[in-house]
Amino acid sequence: MPVFKAPLRDMRFVLDDVFQATDLWARLPALADVVDRDTVDAILEEAAKFNENVVFPLNRSGDEEGAVFNAGEVTTPAGFKDAFTQYGEGGWIGLGADPRWGGQGMPKMVTVMTEEILFGANPSFALYPLLGIGAALSMSQHASDELNERYLPKIYSGEWSGTMCLTEPHAGTDLGIIKTKAVPQADGSYELTGTKIFITGGEHDLASNIIHLVLAKLPDAPAGSKGISLFVVPKFLVNEDGSVGARNPVSAGNIEHKMGIKGSATCVMNFDAAKGWLVGEINQGLAAMFVMMNYERLSMGLQGIGASEVAYQNAAAYAKDRLQGRSAKGAAQPEKAADSLLVHPDVRRMLLNVRAHNEAGRCFAMYVSKYLDLAKYSDDADERAQAADRVALMTPVAKAFLTDKAFEACVEAQQVFGGHGYVREWGMEQLVRDTRIAQIYEGTNGVQAQDLVGRKLVKNRGAYVHNYVTEVRELIARVQGDSALASAAQATAAAADAIAQATDDLVAASAQDADEINAAAVDFLHAFGLFTYAHMWLLMLQAAQGKDGDFYADKRRVAGFFFSRMLPELDMRLAFIRGGAAPLMALSAEGF
Amino acid sequence: MPVFKAPLRDMRFVLDDVFQATDLWARLPALADVVDRDTVDAILEEAAKFNENVVFPLNRSGDEEGAVFNAGEVTTPAGFKDAFTQYGEGGWIGLGADPRWGGQGMPKMVTVMTEEILFGANPSFALYPLLGIGAALSMSQHASDELNERYLPKIYSGEWSGTMCLTEPHAGTDLGIIKTKAVPQADGSYELTGTKIFITGGEHDLASNIIHLVLAKLPDAPAGSKGISLFVVPKFLVNEDGSVGARNPVSAGNIEHKMGIKGSATCVMNFDAAKGWLVGEINQGLAAMFVMMNYERLSMGLQGIGASEVAYQNAAAYAKDRLQGRSAKGAAQPEKAADSLLVHPDVRRMLLNVRAHNEAGRCFAMYVSKYLDLAKYSDDADERAQAADRVALMTPVAKAFLTDKAFEACVEAQQVFGGHGYVREWGMEQLVRDTRIAQIYEGTNGVQAQDLVGRKLVKNRGAYVHNYVTEVRELIARVQGDSALASAAQATAAAADAIAQATDDLVAASAQDADEINAAAVDFLHAFGLFTYAHMWLLMLQAAQGKDGDFYADKRRVAGFFFSRMLPELDMRLAFIRGGAAPLMALSAEGF
Repeated sequence: MPVFKAPLRDMRFVLDDVFQATDLWARLPALADVVDRDTVDAILEEAAKFNENVVFPLNRSGDEEGAVFNAGEVTTPAGFKDAFTQYGEGGWIGLGADPRWGGQGMPKMVTVMTEEILFGANPSFALYPLLGIGAALSMSQHASDELNERYLPKIYSGEWSGTMCLTEPHAGTDLGIIKTKAVPQADGSYELTGTKIFITGGEHDLASNIIHLVLAKLPDAPAGSKGISLFVVPKFLVNEDGSVGARNPVSAGNIEHKMGIKGSATCVMNFDAAKGWLVGEINQGLAAMFVMMNYERLSMGLQGIGASEVAYQNAAAYAKDRLQGRSAKGAAQPEKAADSLLVHPDVRRMLLNVRAHNEAGRCFAMYVSKYLDLAKYSDDADERAQAADRVALMTPVAKAFLTDKAFEACVEAQQVFGGHGYVREWGMEQLVRDTRIAQIYEGTNGVQAQDLVGRKLVKNRGAYVHNYVTEVRELIARVQGDSALASAAQATAAAADAIAQATDDLVAASAQDADEINAAAVDFLHAFGLFTYAHMWLLMLQAAQGKDGDFYADKRRVAGFFFSRMLPELDMRLAFIRGGAAPLMALSAEGF
Repeated sequence: MPVFKAPLRDMRFVLDDVFQATDLWARLPALADVVDRDTVDAILEEAAKFNENVVFPLNRSGDEEGAVFNAGEVTTPAGFKDAFTQYGEGGWIGLGADPRWGGQGMPKMVTVMTEEILFGANPSFALYPLLGIGAALSMSQHASDELNERYLPKIYSGEWSGTMCLTEPHAGTDLGIIKTKAVPQADGSYELTGTKIFITGGEHDLASNIIHLVLAKLPDAPAGSKGISLFVVPKFLVNEDGSVGARNPVSAGNIEHKMGIKGSATCVMNFDAAKGWLVGEINQGLAAMFVMMNYERLSMGLQGIGASEVAYQNAAAYAKDRLQGRSAKGAAQPEKAADSLLVHPDVRRMLLNVRAHNEAGRCFAMYVSKYLDLAKYSDDADERAQAADRVALMTPVAKAFLTDKAFEACVEAQQVFGGHGYVREWGMEQLVRDTRIAQIYEGTNGVQAQDLVGRKLVKNRGAYVHNYVTEVRELIARVQGDSALASAAQATAAAADAIAQATDDLVAASAQDADEINAAAVDFLHAFGLFTYAHMWLLMLQAAQGKDGDFYADKRRVAGFFFSRMLPELDMRLAFIRGGAAPLMALSAEGF
């Protein structure tokens, strides 16, 4: 059976040594009174305890049992309901939410850690509260006070839960062509009719009401994405006194049978003239939904890191224990029948691939969180605006790069186990199956890459990227006098130059051929992701500099692995981009 | 539901245009009378028909039902028994086997195609006959005529089946430490006692007897791999008249619950003083088993290509049909709500990654088959010896590179489907789960890489690699005058230089530090695999040269994609190798 310990030591390193969170919080008036370091420590300890002891033990059984659909009702795996109730009562759902609606107002730099722990413990379970948090966040920014007052406190307490209903059978990435209709009623409400698919937590037995946020079109709406509005549609209508009233005609038609995250109910939802209320402005629904997406997409990255952290912990433990073969340099443990797997460089290569990703990814998620907090809480308008630009640039990277690398990492960790990795009892194959979805949902990773290269790069002629490159070059200038950091700084500088050049090349190429954007997208995202990892490793080396002990020494060792045996992928990605769109477009459609 | 058509057109291209098989067969006396082109065509047509119509329809249901264990008995999924009987009666199991024992003596250049088709149709089903073929091959080369006469004809007819029992709970890669004991008996037989795990087809309901080939140690055997002997142990003892007699005390203790290939029973086998007979010489068991491994390992590569061929066919069909988003150059199908996915360069990139792998991999498998046939059937001793060296070099590449790329390909094809790729009904997630095992079993891909770089490269100071590089350079010299092939020839020449240099560097580095072999192994295998693919694409370009029609034009287009957007991975792999062993060995064992 797999094991899981929340990586608190590493989280504290990132929070304190790398990003000096307390200094940042102290200078932000909006946070100075809300968060202090002792509280954060208590939160982390409690998150570790709850997720290790209550949530993680349901991960394997949740996969075995799965969510079960029967005549419109969904039964979640045994233990999920009790854990969800505890999770809500513990204040975890509202941890980062607006205190006005019952939240605790913790910054993203705190919830980024508790979310990673939750996802590491049990991704299927994690999705139930997460979708509610997303829906509530979107409402809190766009819905009327009346609606927020009615719904949000009960979502944050876990009494109710929430969903986001976007996809339809013919409309996934392309939401402009959705067909769900919303017809205005005399009382100011709307009646929604249509079918949504892939609705996470659309129906379940965890909460006494489910609050759906639904994209739909008014009868006279303009075509395409400019004609989409956002509605709140509760499973049960809510009485004036806040109690649960009559059933609204929205129901699950079925659930999907999936590769993984089997404990999470992925529902087909039928709206049959269901009563709903407008959130935000008419025809502004997509914008309202996407505000929340920056948080959601970082969460998908956290799902990736959470999973690959578990993968690492278990693969490293297995490699230590398993005796097989001998060191090429002669028996390391001659008194035993064979040496530990750790004598084999290739086994270490696999483990270090996973670990170097986990540590850089965790640091990167905190980096993005810092800018999410600055964009929200800074009292300086310029700082807010610049932070928002950085968030816009990094969000697709956080979603797609972290999850692509996490999937690779889980596969690599599974490989360490040999045949035992393929059988269910060790839990590695579940990690691979569960993590695969993170590359697909909340916008496929290909769509994220298109967002990065199209909207976040070419559209502003590379300004966001160049601003970021400038920040990295400033760090390089600060550390380059330190001989211990020189080779890492040099490699990062080369990566910065290469990314800056590729950015300019892409702006130029896309002016000649609009297909160059999408042709380069995924490879650019990976090159850029590796560049951010180089940046993170340089930050971590700087933070570890001059500090004694194995923890810091190992940081330097894993950094050495990253720069020599991972970063060279960046050049390959840029070489692929230089191949251009032409080889992709040469075949006719019939040729495929 | 997924679809599958055997890729006969592409197979004939490789067989006829690229390798001119009929010319080869005509000059080999041992084959000239056995195989002719018309027979091969009939075999291919029949293989396509049988596998598409009988075997493939059991693939999804086999995954849903799985093999079921109950009190020592294994029930295979519905339809498997009937299909297995038909498969045996159709002569497919003995297609490549020695006619002396009931086989049809077809060369590997033929069975390589029928095996790919079988694996594409249903990998779980494929393993049942395949293991019997492997066991029988090993016996036919090492067992006494008496044993062969007793067992082989009934394995080839499908009346009985076969297994290979190597792994034990504590001994996977490291077979030197197995514990199963074989005690000599007065009648010349042995009694075997021990536990084997991960035994494919160890127990099932497809055949009336199961013939186990078992590795075990005599009581006085030397320690390690030099003390292993090979035994044949039937489930039911065989009477003098060839009929099935008393039950031998060998039985399944359980089956594994696995990520995929669920229709294949992976058994724990308990031998409780089971009667067995020695195959080959005492203490020479490992060598006897490994003779067969060259064939078996190519088969795992074929499992990979078979799967990624199915992945390609379905992803290409989905991409054509699915309307989502618009071309960056303006609507391609303005009369429809959206354009086909094929307008998006990134979707084409994913499809072409899969296709360029499939076509190069199929060509490479045929190339290896040619040398397997030359090593076996040539009447020239030098040619046999040289072919055997080439086979030795290429076998770990065929197993590991083809399956690593196939897994990537299945994941990439799944990604084309977006959320639909994650749900079971489209079949893509099963392809990913089923293909994953091919990277693990029959020696993990890391072990294959160790074999390549250790035994096949460093041990002979790069001679095998340099001989192969010479062959490729001769091809380059022949085609470089052709301007249409010039850029491909140039890229292949650069790859040849890089591989030759990396080979010499590895020989030198490993003399200084024995860990450099394993530290470089997987990356060298991938670099080398990409080099062989460049070679294959150059051969295919040469074969397509001057030929009209879309088929040949598309070969040139896919080749263009390979050289510009896949081959650059080679440089990255060599850069990783230059990172050396030091960054891998820097952490202490406790640091992991």
